[in-house]
Amino acid sequence: MGIRVAVAGASGYAGGELLRLIAGHPEFDLVAATAHSQAGAPVSAVHPQLTGIDLVFGSTDPATLADADLVFLALPHGQSAAIAAALPETVKVVDLGADHRLIDADAWARYYGGPHAGTWTYGLPELPGQRTAIAAANRVAATGCYAVATTLALAPLVAAGAVSPDDVVVVASSGTSGAGRAAKIHLLGSEVMGDLSVYKVGAHQHVPEIKQATGAASLSFTPVLAPMPRGILATVTARPVDGGPDPREVLTQAYADAPFVHVLPEGAWPRTSATLGSNSCHLQVGTDVDSGRVIVVSAIDNLGKGAAGQAVQCANLMLGLPETAGLSAYGVMP
Amino acid sequence: MGIRVAVAGASGYAGGELLRLIAGHPEFDLVAATAHSQAGAPVSAVHPQLTGIDLVFGSTDPATLADADLVFLALPHGQSAAIAAALPETVKVVDLGADHRLIDADAWARYYGGPHAGTWTYGLPELPGQRTAIAAANRVAATGCYAVATTLALAPLVAAGAVSPDDVVVVASSGTSGAGRAAKIHLLGSEVMGDLSVYKVGAHQHVPEIKQATGAASLSFTPVLAPMPRGILATVTARPVDGGPDPREVLTQAYADAPFVHVLPEGAWPRTSATLGSNSCHLQVGTDVDSGRVIVVSAIDNLGKGAAGQAVQCANLMLGLPETAGLSAYGVMP
Amino acid sequence: MGIRVAVAGASGYAGGELLRLIAGHPEFDLVAATAHSQAGAPVSAVHPQLTGIDLVFGSTDPATLADADLVFLALPHGQSAAIAAALPETVKVVDLGADHRLIDADAWARYYGGPHAGTWTYGLPELPGQRTAIAAANRVAATGCYAVATTLALAPLVAAGAVSPDDVVVVASSGTSGAGRAAKIHLLGSEVMGDLSVYKVGAHQHVPEIKQATGAASLSFTPVLAPMPRGILATVTARPVDGGPDPREVLTQAYADAPFVHVLPEGAWPRTSATLGSNSCHLQVGTDVDSGRVIVVSAIDNLGKGAAGQAVQCANLMLGLPETAGLSAYGVMP
Amino acid sequence: MGIRVAVAGASGYAGGELLRLIAGHPEFDLVAATAHSQAGAPVSAVHPQLTGIDLVFGSTDPATLADADLVFLALPHGQSAAIAAALPETVKVVDLGADHRLIDADAWARYYGGPHAGTWTYGLPELPGQRTAIAAANRVAATGCYAVATTLALAPLVAAGAVSPDDVVVVASSGTSGAGRAAKIHLLGSEVMGDLSVYKVGAHQHVPEIKQATGAASLSFTPVLAPMPRGILATVTARPVDGGPDPREVLTQAYADAPFVHVLPEGAWPRTSATLGSNSCHLQVGTDVDSGRVIVVSAIDNLGKGAAGQAVQCANLMLGLPETAGLSAYGVMP
Repeated sequence: MGIRVAVAGASGYAGGELLRLIAGHPEFDLVAATAHSQAGAPVSAVHPQLTGIDLVFGSTDPATLADADLVFLALPHGQSAAIAAALPETVKVVDLGADHRLIDADAWARYYGGPHAGTWTYGLPELPGQRTAIAAANRVAATGCYAVATTLALAPLVAAGAVSPDDVVVVASSGTSGAGRAAKIHLLGSEVMGDLSVYKVGAHQHVPEIKQATGAASLSFTPVLAPMPRGILATVTARPVDGGPDPREVLTQAYADAPFVHVLPEGAWPRTSATLGSNSCHLQVGTDVDSGRVIVVSAIDNLGKGAAGQAVQCANLMLGLPETAGLSAYGVMP
Repeated sequence: MGIRVAVAGASGYAGGELLRLIAGHPEFDLVAATAHSQAGAPVSAVHPQLTGIDLVFGSTDPATLADADLVFLALPHGQSAAIAAALPETVKVVDLGADHRLIDADAWARYYGGPHAGTWTYGLPELPGQRTAIAAANRVAATGCYAVATTLALAPLVAAGAVSPDDVVVVASSGTSGAGRAAKIHLLGSEVMGDLSVYKVGAHQHVPEIKQATGAASLSFTPVLAPMPRGILATVTARPVDGGPDPREVLTQAYADAPFVHVLPEGAWPRTSATLGSNSCHLQVGTDVDSGRVIVVSAIDNLGKGAAGQAVQCANLMLGLPETAGLSAYGVMP
Repeated sequence: MGIRVAVAGASGYAGGELLRLIAGHPEFDLVAATAHSQAGAPVSAVHPQLTGIDLVFGSTDPATLADADLVFLALPHGQSAAIAAALPETVKVVDLGADHRLIDADAWARYYGGPHAGTWTYGLPELPGQRTAIAAANRVAATGCYAVATTLALAPLVAAGAVSPDDVVVVASSGTSGAGRAAKIHLLGSEVMGDLSVYKVGAHQHVPEIKQATGAASLSFTPVLAPMPRGILATVTARPVDGGPDPREVLTQAYADAPFVHVLPEGAWPRTSATLGSNSCHLQVGTDVDSGRVIVVSAIDNLGKGAAGQAVQCANLMLGLPETAGLSAYGVMP
Repeated sequence: MGIRVAVAGASGYAGGELLRLIAGHPEFDLVAATAHSQAGAPVSAVHPQLTGIDLVFGSTDPATLADADLVFLALPHGQSAAIAAALPETVKVVDLGADHRLIDADAWARYYGGPHAGTWTYGLPELPGQRTAIAAANRVAATGCYAVATTLALAPLVAAGAVSPDDVVVVASSGTSGAGRAAKIHLLGSEVMGDLSVYKVGAHQHVPEIKQATGAASLSFTPVLAPMPRGILATVTARPVDGGPDPREVLTQAYADAPFVHVLPEGAWPRTSATLGSNSCHLQVGTDVDSGRVIVVSAIDNLGKGAAGQAVQCANLMLGLPETAGLSAYGVMP
């Protein structure tokens, strides 16, 4: 008998990816998947890629979830706190939403609004000390998708004094699944195919999370919507510190033992498709000839390392399982 | 110590997918990957999705391969026979190429040209009796991608007398990876994105294989190139036989025990993306109101059930492993 | 002072393309664009590609339209009749919807439901005699998108006795704009990119229109949704008639004087991208070696020759203008 | 009899778009199209979107071109100078290549290598005074695609003292046609669909051109390859100058009389698809809440305003025609 796992909010894209990963996990048994409007529908009617999984969505109430050993919350922002509060302390919980990521309640109020739900252990195992902290926690707030891509590129460089935290500029492009499974005109295939656009210019809600996780003091962050279902490519630029350590050396050492973060060989640059369906992050760093800026590029699957994969990685640590259990480091490409 | 596995022709798309599946297989150890022009290059330089696999391509000669327990041949048509002949009988071989599929040497000459290499056990486990035959074979010719999609849709209906073999019309669309990793203008992203086109109209080389595998007596087959990397959607139409059995019933029974072939619930129709990265085939069948024709639609991943996944499934059977070892039934979607 | 033109239902995709074509037409002055839910919004807020057109959507009532010399109706099925009835006979009207295409009221009832609005002159100028009929008409029902692609491929062959009308099989793939600008989950970019799927299998509403326009007696028609915004590729197969004329010769002669229908040189096959944004239809024909079936492939832009371009072409004829005024025969490619 | 126009290097993507625009131009008569490897082939065999144009590619020698009134050079970098030198001064020439754009011969040597061909009038009519300069010139060097997108966003702001030239950071994504029609593995549809990647990080050859055209003193420029055939979306960030003028006001005034550059209404942000096939550039500007940086976003069609459209616009000015002749301000969307 394996570990009993439940997913709340399983009808969205991150939820679907969680169900796929759970189905392939050697230790997990899926016992419940809940959904708001889809309660009562077969899982495979909503997620045709899961045809063969014989389960019906339940409704998202704590009673359905409390029976599990491990609960993933993949709910809209602001809905996790109430559910989590109703679960026994012994149930391990990984929240894929933003509710418990921020330390600064003011930042929460400014970017999300509403009351701050409190702060959980931050679910990015590759940050210093975080692997241990996650292993000791019963409540973990998994990192946001843009924050994963940016933080893995930037945090070690700021910490090592390789780049200045004072003027970080990030432009990050995401596939459309990052916008969720909402029936909106601007997300129609007819609108997004063949199209690049920007959105939430000047004030994306991941900014405070990225600053908290990277140590950036000033952050210009512009998100771009790209014509593909999955993937984030982040271009992170920062000024080098005079006499600071070599950025590539810093990143290579920072991730020497990380099974899912790869600094690519020199000359190779990240591509999102190489991470599709995997839990990997690919990184490369260079210097701009003209401006002297350090340029770090990172690629992830926004639903993998950016959401469901990351959450499973955290859960593995919380449960004392191998960090890599049920996760692939290899992308589905082409 | 696991089963020692080698892949010849591993630098192409099917080869890359084989390497990915082997890396995730619980019993396989990859001992060699060979390539013609890429010999000497790191595997991850050619397949960035396999970053983390520390292996260099060897050259494709029998000595490199003979040391393995299991060899996959993912070579261009016409190159398998010579390699296979040089391997000991004790080495199990799965050929992803066309060389050993056809029984009829004339058909080979007509559609492929050159001498016929002989006929191996046909690698489509879901055909009646074929699972047993594959389990007993040391040499298996895996099914072609279009043939998988068409045969799974059609063969049981012809065999059961549900449809006539006399006037089968198939239009099947494939993602571009089906055309291989060849630097050709008409396969450039600029040319294929936003575009649908037909090719090899009237005489595709999979026609004799499909007729052999399905029992179709007359087959009109038109392939379409679709703007996506992977996936085949086949629309198979045939005339019903008066008084014949119900097509949906026939298909449901034919695949009752097949772990990778799913007849979808009534009202649901196959989508290629639901099979992406998986070894699944999704099927549905209906009747055209105006013409009375039976319409069967099937969806696969051309590199999964249509190539590498199918080959691993056959290898599992040849080695006495669970048919599903190292394979996922669930797609990476969206 | 040019011809005063109004568009009803201008907020959808066909409506937007009409506005673009009208803006580039040498004789047309756009005087009104109406929309249901978007009334009051600037045109460019709904159609950002029309930035620079300084017009606000009106509401769709006859008074707004009656002042024009020419009215295009791009309304949902079933809404044209009431509007048209309220317009003076002297106003020329082209209906892009299905309401007035069918001769057979029973077929209307069976495929669309509701009362039959009556039959207008059929707006496919390339059919024999139709150019003259359209020129004489004040009310024209423009052809449906799938019907354009299929009819141009098939009608001359049936009429000339080159193929049998008795067993026509069509599989036609369309870009997503054919499904309209409706906020539906299954049309999201995340769902359609990388995906092929079938829909309305066995009973598409264009079937009676295609039969009426082509003379097909039995028609199996399967539509496929393809991952691109625009374009239809139709594969039309029919049995040849013994001793009948050469199909390619028939098509070449049928379209010798048609400025927008091109039978491609031998060896070249249609591609949808070559027609993007244009009013052209590309055709090629071959014979299937195995089955002997005649295979005609046609490509159009579903919003061009399949909708707005076709409608402008009809309007040009109705107004005594050159058939090609304001229309391009050349696609935007790549 | 119209103006006699020839295109050298007409088999590439920019060349094809030039031919399309020339075919639709009210004053231009295409008299010759030359190509290197495709000499002797029908134009429509290389550019199927131009089916109906009855012309064969000539070889690229000056004798073929000298007979024209106007010559467009769409040749690989380094090949324009020799051809141009052999043309009579009376022939007006627009070079779409980079050879004659740079003033600084050292910058040419550093980024392109080889001898500097000299400097022609810079073909960006929207820069102050440039419309007049182009109208007076017989030789014009049209702007590079990334340079168009970046310069239109940035140059007025630097000139007006709204932003500092000292630390400009640009991340710009381009569709694949920007990489040209070269048969390369990494440009295959299978490789680029579903993928974002960076290239030429830290030293793109458009950097010196952009600095020259915008007045930027320090420029970090990172190009991204996006999964679509056409379009450039540039995100341009710079520090505001204390007490400087309002950026949006500056841009609005700068382009008040420019028929193809549109500062979008507040709240609307540029999308590449809205410019597809057109000669328009869409702009919007905002301020980043956290960093205070000014963020300007621009969208163009890289083959339209970024290449062929721009070149035709320049030619119109050189010939005393309306600037907008033969060009559309409206995109083909969706």
